[in-house]
Amino acid sequence: MNFEYLIRDVYQKIKNIEDKGEIASYIPELSKVDPKSFGVHISTINQVNCGIGNYNEKFSIQSIAKVLALILAYRLVGDEIWDRVGVEPSGTAFNSLVQLEADKGIPRNPFLNAGAIVVSDILISNLRNPKEDFIDFVRSISNNTSLGYSNRIAQSEKEVGYRNIALCNFIKSFGQIQNKPSDVLDFYFDLCSLEMSCKELSELFLFLANNGLRVENNEAILSESQSKRVNALMQTCGFYDESGEFAFKVGLPGKSGVGGGIIAIHPDQYAIAVWSPKLNKKGNSHKGMIFLEEFTTRSELSIF
Amino acid sequence: MNFEYLIRDVYQKIKNIEDKGEIASYIPELSKVDPKSFGVHISTINQVNCGIGNYNEKFSIQSIAKVLALILAYRLVGDEIWDRVGVEPSGTAFNSLVQLEADKGIPRNPFLNAGAIVVSDILISNLRNPKEDFIDFVRSISNNTSLGYSNRIAQSEKEVGYRNIALCNFIKSFGQIQNKPSDVLDFYFDLCSLEMSCKELSELFLFLANNGLRVENNEAILSESQSKRVNALMQTCGFYDESGEFAFKVGLPGKSGVGGGIIAIHPDQYAIAVWSPKLNKKGNSHKGMIFLEEFTTRSELSIF
Amino acid sequence: MNFEYLIRDVYQKIKNIEDKGEIASYIPELSKVDPKSFGVHISTINQVNCGIGNYNEKFSIQSIAKVLALILAYRLVGDEIWDRVGVEPSGTAFNSLVQLEADKGIPRNPFLNAGAIVVSDILISNLRNPKEDFIDFVRSISNNTSLGYSNRIAQSEKEVGYRNIALCNFIKSFGQIQNKPSDVLDFYFDLCSLEMSCKELSELFLFLANNGLRVENNEAILSESQSKRVNALMQTCGFYDESGEFAFKVGLPGKSGVGGGIIAIHPDQYAIAVWSPKLNKKGNSHKGMIFLEEFTTRSELSIF
Amino acid sequence: MNFEYLIRDVYQKIKNIEDKGEIASYIPELSKVDPKSFGVHISTINQVNCGIGNYNEKFSIQSIAKVLALILAYRLVGDEIWDRVGVEPSGTAFNSLVQLEADKGIPRNPFLNAGAIVVSDILISNLRNPKEDFIDFVRSISNNTSLGYSNRIAQSEKEVGYRNIALCNFIKSFGQIQNKPSDVLDFYFDLCSLEMSCKELSELFLFLANNGLRVENNEAILSESQSKRVNALMQTCGFYDESGEFAFKVGLPGKSGVGGGIIAIHPDQYAIAVWSPKLNKKGNSHKGMIFLEEFTTRSELSIF
Repeated sequence: MNFEYLIRDVYQKIKNIEDKGEIASYIPELSKVDPKSFGVHISTINQVNCGIGNYNEKFSIQSIAKVLALILAYRLVGDEIWDRVGVEPSGTAFNSLVQLEADKGIPRNPFLNAGAIVVSDILISNLRNPKEDFIDFVRSISNNTSLGYSNRIAQSEKEVGYRNIALCNFIKSFGQIQNKPSDVLDFYFDLCSLEMSCKELSELFLFLANNGLRVENNEAILSESQSKRVNALMQTCGFYDESGEFAFKVGLPGKSGVGGGIIAIHPDQYAIAVWSPKLNKKGNSHKGMIFLEEFTTRSELSIF
Repeated sequence: MNFEYLIRDVYQKIKNIEDKGEIASYIPELSKVDPKSFGVHISTINQVNCGIGNYNEKFSIQSIAKVLALILAYRLVGDEIWDRVGVEPSGTAFNSLVQLEADKGIPRNPFLNAGAIVVSDILISNLRNPKEDFIDFVRSISNNTSLGYSNRIAQSEKEVGYRNIALCNFIKSFGQIQNKPSDVLDFYFDLCSLEMSCKELSELFLFLANNGLRVENNEAILSESQSKRVNALMQTCGFYDESGEFAFKVGLPGKSGVGGGIIAIHPDQYAIAVWSPKLNKKGNSHKGMIFLEEFTTRSELSIF
Repeated sequence: MNFEYLIRDVYQKIKNIEDKGEIASYIPELSKVDPKSFGVHISTINQVNCGIGNYNEKFSIQSIAKVLALILAYRLVGDEIWDRVGVEPSGTAFNSLVQLEADKGIPRNPFLNAGAIVVSDILISNLRNPKEDFIDFVRSISNNTSLGYSNRIAQSEKEVGYRNIALCNFIKSFGQIQNKPSDVLDFYFDLCSLEMSCKELSELFLFLANNGLRVENNEAILSESQSKRVNALMQTCGFYDESGEFAFKVGLPGKSGVGGGIIAIHPDQYAIAVWSPKLNKKGNSHKGMIFLEEFTTRSELSIF
Repeated sequence: MNFEYLIRDVYQKIKNIEDKGEIASYIPELSKVDPKSFGVHISTINQVNCGIGNYNEKFSIQSIAKVLALILAYRLVGDEIWDRVGVEPSGTAFNSLVQLEADKGIPRNPFLNAGAIVVSDILISNLRNPKEDFIDFVRSISNNTSLGYSNRIAQSEKEVGYRNIALCNFIKSFGQIQNKPSDVLDFYFDLCSLEMSCKELSELFLFLANNGLRVENNEAILSESQSKRVNALMQTCGFYDESGEFAFKVGLPGKSGVGGGIIAIHPDQYAIAVWSPKLNKKGNSHKGMIFLEEFTTRSELSIF
């Protein structure tokens, strides 16, 4: 498969469609990005790397960082993590509060805000200097020391993140948060402020296409079984209330963020990152979703 | 991969574990089955076929028939079907009524009872003799004229199916059922009464592992894209409130029924059917789930 | 208090306000009424009776009949009725299905459709000829043999009452309906088709202002305690999702119907019936609510 | 009516029944009270005052203070308060979060925690020194300078009040809290820490039985209409998920607190306060509810 040709071709086709999405505005800082930004980068296990458009520009990866938090927590505590957070899709955001109540503070999966807050709590309990240790981990598995948090974005979220403060305290009221809610939230907001480019994202996440091993040196970041399970979770829960739609149209495990980024994994093949800031009504990148649908249709590669 | 050896080995291992499940008892007829029944059959696109245990015994496939109803409706009306039913996981059964209300009678996916009732309504509107035409379709794609409904099971469901009568009339109250509720329910209960053996199931569903084409003659039952989408739906929604767990542990698209049957698909490889009547708390075959987890772990084959 | 003067004065004031309500249209037959109909009738325990406008015209009392069904069931089975139906307000219609699920088929109160369906089931189990016996009871306590069902309205409801069919079968699925759903629904739809004039309503319900005793002859229709409890239920649950608003603005126990009728009780004083078919967004008579608010404000009589 | 005799008689009867309730334990400080405490005090508009048992002992009035907060806010902003909080019963606690979401941060009524938090926000916006001004108001309308907050209780709530922190931030996320959540919560926790005896409660609340006027000097604390409306709210919403039951069995407007106190109002007659710390499953004083049911049954005085 000539991925380089295919990516360029699909990119040109999608680049000029009307973008009906809207930039996330609930955090003032997020709305400052250029709405026309559009970048794509693919990294294959055969060491093909190619990008197009704004693939080298850093953006706020937001919820994509939840996968990284999950990975580190999974390494640290193993399957005990599943005592604190489930592996089921959640239905709608609307239901998540009801379900938290019905499930007594156990979030349905680690990619809901509630779930990532619980994962943050686990990390705080298991890291000496959570904020530093986490970024060190991300840098080490990507061999990229330039990765970092955006204080600007984190601060912006801390000022208006009432919904997340509510979630964290609600879970705490069920005894399912062990640390102080303010510490957990601080870490969670830092987490979501991580900035990466499409190139950095696809390179970082490639190990999930390679059974948990870094392609460069075969170092195990996760066991094969853990790696498959993280992919399975991205497949069923990675796109909020549009996870089924993504599986249906794109057919790959993936994760989106409200910064307009999407990472998708084709096991045994490649990792691909797309970035376009305008979001559809479900909160996923409008152009990003269309690009990936077209890309997997044209490449005739989906896991199904 | 020597599937024959592997299946026998895993079968022997799982056969004697304690079965903590319980036979479905809400329909009196269903509870008459031998609780120790246990059968497995695999069919590969390379024409390997092998079974073990009660793989040749017919049982009530129940909700597995929802996939067949979806396939026929998808053939008949194409993507218009998605105007009437969604493609998203539903969260819990508990939420499905709330979601039906919030979504004004559009079920979240075709594998919920609500969704299959809507698919039944579509079939009734598009078939001349729904009950006969449907079984003819199933027989034709499986090249197996022995397949049929169980009047005994269908009658048993019609007598106590209050929850489904409620669902159908609730959807009708939103104007999302076009035929008479009693006609739709009659057809739906017939559908769920279909009986097949593991052998028949894995042979019938093999085309979903083969991009929609029957392996024997390359006849297209679904287009490649439709076939992938049906698999994606089974991946995200096939196991009620345990769909995430199945993706997580087994990693294959599949569908279960309260009769204790499970069909799972490995795209480009095989279809496998398992039957063991005792159900876990989520309503899926207790031994069947364990068998498939062990089988995919041992074969190191999951789609992730 | 000169009720006659006050009623005329308030009637003239309210008669000409713009009526922003809408006639109930979900049952075709209900929408055939003259939207400008407006009648009021009061009956006091001091035997004052006076009416104005269309007070002598029969209309479909709809849900007001739920109070009559409750009264007869309360007489027949006493406090056992509260094993089958609660006495708490329900929050919104939206929640009633969720609550039915959470409460395993026990409706929150007898004035919800779900609750009245359960009361209908109790009546069927305890009456020899439910339809005839019920109308005989209503005629006897009102000393008015002209009262009767409207076959036209009942038939109209039976044809489109999908939501109620859904509710009845849903409750049946929890084992909380003892008779056949179709029998229960038949009786329930007959019940709701009762027709009365404002005059007949206020005369019939006057015993609830008189501690359960008919004013003419002191015959006990309910015990004093039962009568108070029926009033308490009307106070907290009589106006669907607007019960709090009615208590807040009018301050009397009462019950409304989608035919545009309202009955209200002032204990130890009077019963008053209002009819105006256009409904506000909560399903209660728009002018009727305004009339009663003005009437209790002007009379300085509320129970609070 | 010889209230003095009746209260003593009912008190003796109820005193020795087995108390199946449990003391509130979610706030450590609350559980330090003597579980056998039991006091009653009545104050009539004819200036009869009598108490029995621990009627002169101060206890934590908890949610009863929500009525006082409502009264002060109602005085300060009039009917504008109803733009921020509704007047409808809420169904269950379970639903309140769903309803807050559906109603975009408008609580169903001012006696829910969510509603009292919004009322607290209104008070903070309208008082110069909220904490001092509020206690001054309470002292002035009761002519009792000994009333005050319990720092011990307030501190205890601030340390474990995660559910209320969640509620406040959730409402803030809808833009329905104007001040800083931490300020609103501080005030709310102070509010709930108010301590009074039964004697002080019944004397303070007597004006609600007197159309809003203090009995001693006819000073208007609320207008007649406002006073009736506060009573109506207590009738429909004063006892959490047991409001219907209280109306049904006791038949008076009232308000309970998890400290085991209940205040009830008989318009035009009296205010009565009961205290017994063990709570029933709905969070209301077990003995208090039984006492009031027996008292109104024996006195044949209910508003219905």
